[in-house]
Amino acid sequence: MATKVHVGMETEMNGNGRNGVPEIVKNNWKKRLLDFSGKMKRFTGCLWRNIWKAGREDPRRIIHAFKVGLCLTLVSLLYLIEPLFKSFGTSAIWAVMTVVVVLEFTAGATLCKGLNRGLGTVLAGSLAFLINYIATRSESVVRAVFIGAAVFLIGTAATYMRFFPYIKKNYDYGVVIFLLTFNLITVSSYRVENVLKIVHDRFYAISIGCAICLFMSLLVFPIWSGEDLHNSTVGKLEGLAKSIEACVNEYFNDPEIKENQDKSSEDPIYKGYKAVLDSKSIDETLALYASWEPRHSRHCYRFPWQQYVKVGAVLRQFGYTVVALHGCLQTEIQTPRSVRARFKDPCIRLAGEVTKALMELANNIRRRRHCSPEILSDHLHEALQDLDTAIKSQPRLFLGSKKNQKTTNMLALAAAHAARYKQEKDHGVSLASVKTDSSAFLEWKRKRVGREEAKENERKALRPQLSKIAITSLEFSEALPFAAFASLLVEIVARLDHVIEEVEELGRIACYKEFNPDDDDISVTCKRPPLDVTKNQLPSHAF
Amino acid sequence: MATKVHVGMETEMNGNGRNGVPEIVKNNWKKRLLDFSGKMKRFTGCLWRNIWKAGREDPRRIIHAFKVGLCLTLVSLLYLIEPLFKSFGTSAIWAVMTVVVVLEFTAGATLCKGLNRGLGTVLAGSLAFLINYIATRSESVVRAVFIGAAVFLIGTAATYMRFFPYIKKNYDYGVVIFLLTFNLITVSSYRVENVLKIVHDRFYAISIGCAICLFMSLLVFPIWSGEDLHNSTVGKLEGLAKSIEACVNEYFNDPEIKENQDKSSEDPIYKGYKAVLDSKSIDETLALYASWEPRHSRHCYRFPWQQYVKVGAVLRQFGYTVVALHGCLQTEIQTPRSVRARFKDPCIRLAGEVTKALMELANNIRRRRHCSPEILSDHLHEALQDLDTAIKSQPRLFLGSKKNQKTTNMLALAAAHAARYKQEKDHGVSLASVKTDSSAFLEWKRKRVGREEAKENERKALRPQLSKIAITSLEFSEALPFAAFASLLVEIVARLDHVIEEVEELGRIACYKEFNPDDDDISVTCKRPPLDVTKNQLPSHAF
Repeated sequence: MATKVHVGMETEMNGNGRNGVPEIVKNNWKKRLLDFSGKMKRFTGCLWRNIWKAGREDPRRIIHAFKVGLCLTLVSLLYLIEPLFKSFGTSAIWAVMTVVVVLEFTAGATLCKGLNRGLGTVLAGSLAFLINYIATRSESVVRAVFIGAAVFLIGTAATYMRFFPYIKKNYDYGVVIFLLTFNLITVSSYRVENVLKIVHDRFYAISIGCAICLFMSLLVFPIWSGEDLHNSTVGKLEGLAKSIEACVNEYFNDPEIKENQDKSSEDPIYKGYKAVLDSKSIDETLALYASWEPRHSRHCYRFPWQQYVKVGAVLRQFGYTVVALHGCLQTEIQTPRSVRARFKDPCIRLAGEVTKALMELANNIRRRRHCSPEILSDHLHEALQDLDTAIKSQPRLFLGSKKNQKTTNMLALAAAHAARYKQEKDHGVSLASVKTDSSAFLEWKRKRVGREEAKENERKALRPQLSKIAITSLEFSEALPFAAFASLLVEIVARLDHVIEEVEELGRIACYKEFNPDDDDISVTCKRPPLDVTKNQLPSHAF
Repeated sequence: MATKVHVGMETEMNGNGRNGVPEIVKNNWKKRLLDFSGKMKRFTGCLWRNIWKAGREDPRRIIHAFKVGLCLTLVSLLYLIEPLFKSFGTSAIWAVMTVVVVLEFTAGATLCKGLNRGLGTVLAGSLAFLINYIATRSESVVRAVFIGAAVFLIGTAATYMRFFPYIKKNYDYGVVIFLLTFNLITVSSYRVENVLKIVHDRFYAISIGCAICLFMSLLVFPIWSGEDLHNSTVGKLEGLAKSIEACVNEYFNDPEIKENQDKSSEDPIYKGYKAVLDSKSIDETLALYASWEPRHSRHCYRFPWQQYVKVGAVLRQFGYTVVALHGCLQTEIQTPRSVRARFKDPCIRLAGEVTKALMELANNIRRRRHCSPEILSDHLHEALQDLDTAIKSQPRLFLGSKKNQKTTNMLALAAAHAARYKQEKDHGVSLASVKTDSSAFLEWKRKRVGREEAKENERKALRPQLSKIAITSLEFSEALPFAAFASLLVEIVARLDHVIEEVEELGRIACYKEFNPDDDDISVTCKRPPLDVTKNQLPSHAF
């Protein structure tokens, strides 16, 4: 705003415009120009940030971009260099197409697409040639009808086949290429004499395109899907470990209940398990591509992509329990801090042991070695026992006893005091915890009667409080949520077992090296922050 | 196996072969032929089953397949009919390509790809023309170098841009088409004189292809992404409702603890929430396509796809709590049936109310009307209160009291008796629950000492029992898991609020009609089983 005013003053002081352009039009122009330059500056800044961010997140993207540029230039030489053009002619354009579409981010994806493309082209070429062979024997109109019918039938059948789960998973791209090539050849065969020549040239051009892509993808700075799958598994284990640690710390340490915090915001707990929850499709895609990749270990027969998917599934199951644990922090009925404090040490210790186990699993997978025999250590067992003892030592806890109620009421009174300084919006909830069942229920009823007459825009404001009141007004034993918390912690230990089991199976199949405690001294510090491989999955486009 | 033997006997009895072919070769051939025909039969059967299943799951797939066939035939007419071919020439092939790639399952996806393709082609054509204009002024070698450099730079930049999240989400297909068209035009311009003519013809052909696709997609049996998004939301709500119901029923009614049941098997609980958990990517894709679709309601300004995504997110959060509830059924420490039975009625009632609310929400969304004001009814509140009363009426429950321990031990003895008839494998676990902390721990230690000497193949067999023993050997208050169960039920009620809130917001934005209790009499029975829209998402291929 300040600039605009300044600009206005400046132009006013400049006096009359030359060339007879009215002052106001000139002002307008200058304003627009400045506006435009400001927008351009912001756009450039935004662009620059995006460029920087994309490269910093995963430097392999820059490599991939240069690889694509290089491949395109190489394949363009078929056109640009005279002798090459003479032998290929305009068919060389198919090599360019092939490079644009087949060269993918990872070697596995490129292999998968390249082979699908090859298969689709060969099948479609054969079928088109057969149909052309039959069609050439009849006269022109019959031939046109025959070709039309073939295009319709094959088009319908191939499209329908794409819905079969097996085809869709493995050969969808091949079917699309089949359909495309078949149509192109069949239709153009009606006007062109020598179809065999077309098919032949096109096949060569596509082969050259594929060869360049495969060479570039497999031999020049190759990016392996299997490697990504491996790293993402490590990252997920570490994320879960951090989540559990942060969750338990927040439950016991944070003095303020973060009521207004959005569940989906980027707090460390959510950030840790987020990647695990939605990992199904990305895992399966990476595993599919990894299954096309050649093994890159001397020791093992093949890359155990199937087992990585299994580990992913177990980790998701584990993750759901962590989400439930996180839910204990956000629940409506909260165990008073004083009660929680009594269990702080055993819970934090137990969570610490689980975190340690997860981190060790992550470390072992990263270094491709077997788990140490101590992974489910005495410490974990002792921590469990401590928690058990702590719970047993508080027999009155799970009772709605008088002593407990007194605590509640004191807490509730404190809450009511605090509520005075709070906004009107929070009022209902804070007070509700002091009320007895019946009074809260009556108030709720009263609100509802008013509500039935209320307008639509009020509907939203009232509704959210209903079951909050209903829940907080009940004098559920306040230890109930803590019991849930403790039970979920124990459940996490149980699920940790399944995780360890699958990780050991992974180590067995992938021929990891034996555990050697001496390795531990080195390289714990040199680990890089995990890459977010999900962001590298470009949609896969055909042709 | 039986057939093979029979075949062998039969050929043996046939005696010597004619034509001097040795008997054994002939036998071999016949065998192979029979083998082959058997395989063909199985293949045909499998194919037929797949065809039938794909069509039955969603009959719109058949419609889509026929639409593709029809479009391809229509566009082939550009080649097959003489006058049309005269005006378009071989450029018509681009129309065929466009149809194969642009025509997608839903109208939104087709629109999105069609417009992206148009935009990419226009931009690429303009840029290619500009570069050609600059290049034509220099001599042949300089021109070739200039074109090569342009291809490299544009290729690298465009590929890198595909990693920007905004571009990737909305315009990835457009960028690929841009890259493709730019390369084709730039490279061929080196050998062809009249580039403008190429661009012009190609643009017309692509426009015709796009027009046919859009006509077929929007006007002939249109399939809307928005509709799919709507239906999948309804399906998810119903699935969750069924899950909760089944979960609570199994917790209280099933006489046998299904220890061996696999978590990922298709039990009704898992089936119900499965679709919710992995719904993120599918929701976002459907919403993206729906955002391209024209509104199809007279009442409302636009389709509220963004709100459907929000409802989906809230439902996922809700789903994680249901998973945790399901986890209570599979946990290692189980609350004895006798204890559970005391809380059966209030829990089942509470779950019933939640189920009812979810079903009503699903019903209301299906009929596009607002929620009834009674959705968070007195019944729900009363059910909560009942549960509260029931928990308070069992003050000794959460204590490790003598009475309780007696129950445990009796149960444990019964378990030990039962264990005699069990397999050796289950032995450790069953006995562990009778043991005291120290004895179980000692046994575990003993096992561990033996284990360190054990071979690798034994590793897997021992490991899974470790924390099972650790957990079951502890005398955690057996009510702890029940407390978790009850707490999660209450948590579900609280989360139900968020769901209702977002669904009401959806009703407001989508201009649903007002609630009318008289509608309820009709059509509850006429609902179709929900379609699994996830299976219709074909990978999107470019060009």
